[in-house]
Amino acid sequence: MQNGTSVHMRQRDLSPWPNYDAAVLGYRNYWQPVTWSRKIGKKPVKFNLLGEPIMFHRDNGKVYAFLDLCPHRGVPLSIGRQEFPGTWTCRYHGWTFDNETGVLRAAFTDGPDSPICGKVSMRTYPVEERAGLVWIWMGSEAPSVPVEEDIPVEFLSEGAIIVGRMTERKGNWRYAAENGFDEGHAKYLHRYGALQTLFRALPAWSMRRGGPIMDGPWLARPPDYEGYQGDFPGLGVWPHKIPWYKKVPKRRPQTSASAAVAKRPNAVPRGTSIRLPNLLCSNPGSRSGIHFEWYVPTDAHNHRYLQFLVVHGGMGENIAHHLRYWLRERWMFHVQFNNQDAWMVELMPESGPERLYRPDASITGWRKLGQRARGQEAPVPADDEAPAAPEPEPVLAGDRV
Amino acid sequence: MQNGTSVHMRQRDLSPWPNYDAAVLGYRNYWQPVTWSRKIGKKPVKFNLLGEPIMFHRDNGKVYAFLDLCPHRGVPLSIGRQEFPGTWTCRYHGWTFDNETGVLRAAFTDGPDSPICGKVSMRTYPVEERAGLVWIWMGSEAPSVPVEEDIPVEFLSEGAIIVGRMTERKGNWRYAAENGFDEGHAKYLHRYGALQTLFRALPAWSMRRGGPIMDGPWLARPPDYEGYQGDFPGLGVWPHKIPWYKKVPKRRPQTSASAAVAKRPNAVPRGTSIRLPNLLCSNPGSRSGIHFEWYVPTDAHNHRYLQFLVVHGGMGENIAHHLRYWLRERWMFHVQFNNQDAWMVELMPESGPERLYRPDASITGWRKLGQRARGQEAPVPADDEAPAAPEPEPVLAGDRV
Amino acid sequence: MQNGTSVHMRQRDLSPWPNYDAAVLGYRNYWQPVTWSRKIGKKPVKFNLLGEPIMFHRDNGKVYAFLDLCPHRGVPLSIGRQEFPGTWTCRYHGWTFDNETGVLRAAFTDGPDSPICGKVSMRTYPVEERAGLVWIWMGSEAPSVPVEEDIPVEFLSEGAIIVGRMTERKGNWRYAAENGFDEGHAKYLHRYGALQTLFRALPAWSMRRGGPIMDGPWLARPPDYEGYQGDFPGLGVWPHKIPWYKKVPKRRPQTSASAAVAKRPNAVPRGTSIRLPNLLCSNPGSRSGIHFEWYVPTDAHNHRYLQFLVVHGGMGENIAHHLRYWLRERWMFHVQFNNQDAWMVELMPESGPERLYRPDASITGWRKLGQRARGQEAPVPADDEAPAAPEPEPVLAGDRV
Repeated sequence: MQNGTSVHMRQRDLSPWPNYDAAVLGYRNYWQPVTWSRKIGKKPVKFNLLGEPIMFHRDNGKVYAFLDLCPHRGVPLSIGRQEFPGTWTCRYHGWTFDNETGVLRAAFTDGPDSPICGKVSMRTYPVEERAGLVWIWMGSEAPSVPVEEDIPVEFLSEGAIIVGRMTERKGNWRYAAENGFDEGHAKYLHRYGALQTLFRALPAWSMRRGGPIMDGPWLARPPDYEGYQGDFPGLGVWPHKIPWYKKVPKRRPQTSASAAVAKRPNAVPRGTSIRLPNLLCSNPGSRSGIHFEWYVPTDAHNHRYLQFLVVHGGMGENIAHHLRYWLRERWMFHVQFNNQDAWMVELMPESGPERLYRPDASITGWRKLGQRARGQEAPVPADDEAPAAPEPEPVLAGDRV
Repeated sequence: MQNGTSVHMRQRDLSPWPNYDAAVLGYRNYWQPVTWSRKIGKKPVKFNLLGEPIMFHRDNGKVYAFLDLCPHRGVPLSIGRQEFPGTWTCRYHGWTFDNETGVLRAAFTDGPDSPICGKVSMRTYPVEERAGLVWIWMGSEAPSVPVEEDIPVEFLSEGAIIVGRMTERKGNWRYAAENGFDEGHAKYLHRYGALQTLFRALPAWSMRRGGPIMDGPWLARPPDYEGYQGDFPGLGVWPHKIPWYKKVPKRRPQTSASAAVAKRPNAVPRGTSIRLPNLLCSNPGSRSGIHFEWYVPTDAHNHRYLQFLVVHGGMGENIAHHLRYWLRERWMFHVQFNNQDAWMVELMPESGPERLYRPDASITGWRKLGQRARGQEAPVPADDEAPAAPEPEPVLAGDRV
Repeated sequence: MQNGTSVHMRQRDLSPWPNYDAAVLGYRNYWQPVTWSRKIGKKPVKFNLLGEPIMFHRDNGKVYAFLDLCPHRGVPLSIGRQEFPGTWTCRYHGWTFDNETGVLRAAFTDGPDSPICGKVSMRTYPVEERAGLVWIWMGSEAPSVPVEEDIPVEFLSEGAIIVGRMTERKGNWRYAAENGFDEGHAKYLHRYGALQTLFRALPAWSMRRGGPIMDGPWLARPPDYEGYQGDFPGLGVWPHKIPWYKKVPKRRPQTSASAAVAKRPNAVPRGTSIRLPNLLCSNPGSRSGIHFEWYVPTDAHNHRYLQFLVVHGGMGENIAHHLRYWLRERWMFHVQFNNQDAWMVELMPESGPERLYRPDASITGWRKLGQRARGQEAPVPADDEAPAAPEPEPVLAGDRV
């Protein structure tokens, strides 16, 4: 019999993680990537970042970023012009600002003696270029760390070969990040309709005793083992057999990634990991490279999605990596596979139901990490060492594998 | 002389009828029609109903309705799949719910021992199929009446031949219902531009001493007489003569429909009548059949409009009714004529002026009927026996015919 | 070094000018132009004006304006019909209103004895036709002045030849008006990309000791001199030399327009001036004519932009003016040049930063003028005689030329 009584659905509630709850527009005290260096030239380019309109342009070889609002009347500076080197002039009244300091140096339409010069500034942001990318600091104070501290070592180390794709996606950045670090979805969502998983025996679930762990700046949750097929009570065997799948063990033990692989300091662990402010890494340990993706908030409802596939090597590997990327990985992985993620993030309601299950310890661990966000460090809830348990019931806490 | 003083316009105010005022999204404790039975198959179909997204699908011959939100992360269940008979699986993480009870039976990506099984439910709704249509119960309690109680007997009696049309229309459902039961508009709005009234002598007004009356579940307001042409003080004779109109009496007395026609219990009265939750009937007593229309709220600003034309008979009448409908009635009546109503409902502001006149006693009677809505019965204002008079002046109260 | 500290931007604040602050939808106690007389015929035409939907039609040679909402159910009267001379009938229920008084004269669908007749009125507005244009009075009281008082004498005097263009533009009307009377923008914004200024030596700035002055109904701020080129400290000479510019003096003294030109009472001064409620004039003293533009609010975020070019003369001048307008002035001035203004008004945020400079004394003078708006006269801030200084610093006050 169908049951007509209303099932009260638990609503998503981020209040146990105050920093994360407040970070609708992201964490500000970090260097965040914007675009390829080669995309910024003399002509201004505008991006919405962390809820603010920002204009970028390059002058005398250096990239500058301004809040795209003239303090005089509020029109965008990005429709402006360069009248003199080292300055930028608003298109409306000819207010001319210093690229470096932001200070008003001339208001042409008030004559050479205009008393307002030096008394007004536009808002500027520190910008750096590294690894072929433009990085911005949007904290309210001057940068507290060098840009290198927020860039994965894999981008900066010798021989790094970086390819990727940048798009604007719908949905608050946090749900994109949660989707990325969510252990469970990959094993179901991507099972159907993605070329990348068509001929691969995909694990059906993974198990881990204990919560996620920190590995340098990275938060990871390496599984103890992965299950490939199971007999689900009252239903039957799942996944259904697929003829061309090679035979796999029902369970495959996993070496704890963080412990086993000898690696340089701060290098990404094997498997999937995430770090502040909004960077996910997937390191399969295969020849195709390490995948990184940033979810840079643009506004409360959209984010900028920067995907990279990074390998290291010389000229030969450089050519091979570009070929692999443009012939296969880009279309199969960065477009088709990741579009399934975008599909979910778009569909996830900004306020809606939420009832977490055991694998979501990765999500609650990530939310908790926000309490350690740079420049706004705050107490972490007491159950920090235990697997994240946002609910009183033993649904998440009990790990009875 | 033109007058420039501001005429204060009385605003629409539903507060004298609290149930109706609150029913922005409809009355819930009723069976309401959704679509043709034949439209629901294995593939999920989604409708917004009474402000909620509902997914319908058919499994093993039976129709099921679920709230289209997975309790885990809030994505729509309607993008899901069937992995095992009698269940439905969310596309995101493989949460698998029981069709009948809504209870979570497996979370594939947490393995066969997932402790969350049995602890979470999706919201399900009772569904029935009758008269070739799917009916849903969206009350918060289990159904308090069998589905037959909310279906007009004309749909259920032997030999019923039902044809019709279903569309989504703009405007809150209440203004569609008011337009439907509104006596006055038909005599002016549909006079021009509708083929159906082109060669017919349309009454210009109708008169009734007293308010609307209940006839079984139906609220009706049968007129005492109808006027066909009048001399309007200071203006002249109206309607203007139309050459091809046959000569008609200036007034034609009407037999009170509810009293005169011998009919089965709960059968619809002659003329126009309305019943809860949102069903209008127009019974002209002619061969073309009885017209029914439901205004099922989809959200606060739109409704689902289900139009039917019902006759009774055998095989021959069945063929004749389909021919009449598809060759004439559908286009002339359900499309062109009723589109004039849709035009008004779309134009009527959701908050705007309202100043009722004598014929609007039908509208206030219908608003008042909401006080008797099933499961939320509430006191009815004291003037219940008198013609509805929402205003202190004698504009509506005085019936000086 | 770039500076990452947040520059606090002063936000626009209209509270020093309460009338102007409140005039989101304009000043009401004025005659305002709507459209060309020839555009209003028997068929209703609808305009949104000062936040209200207004229907215009012509009956028996006279133009009438009604609030486009039937007081009965709120549908637009503009979809109605004329059933009898001197009246207008709502399309929904046949309520028939008197064109002159607005009073309900018949409700056809309630019969000739309908008791509601005479008890309800639609809202009507006084309308006049002058100078080939339709003028409306939207004050809550009857007109306190004849229409001629709000029409520039140049439109009414003998031999006036009026050509122009009417469009709907984005942006609150006040920012369009401020842009129009803003001295500074013309000298920078229109310097680039406008054919009209391509071969003309455009002044770079203008200077005036003292604030704007009243000249009849007009507010003007005639400059003491205009500068054509200057050496800007730390930057260099600006404007950059343009080869085909004829040589100009660096400064050109200006004769105070209001004093020097003998003119009829209330005639527009030379140069740029503005008057209530929303009319700007640009009088270059050249053969091409005097330019007028109205910014009539349509709603809070849009305005109706009426541009005119007026000369005076006989038949020959009439032909010449039309030729000049349609071959050159319309495209070069009213379209291309003024589209640069529209560009700015659209980009100006409705709430955003504002930090005024010396030339903006014209803007603050105009805002202050709102305190004298007809029918809502209110005290004017004490610094009325000094140049407007919305800020405590000497940025605007100091005029050290």
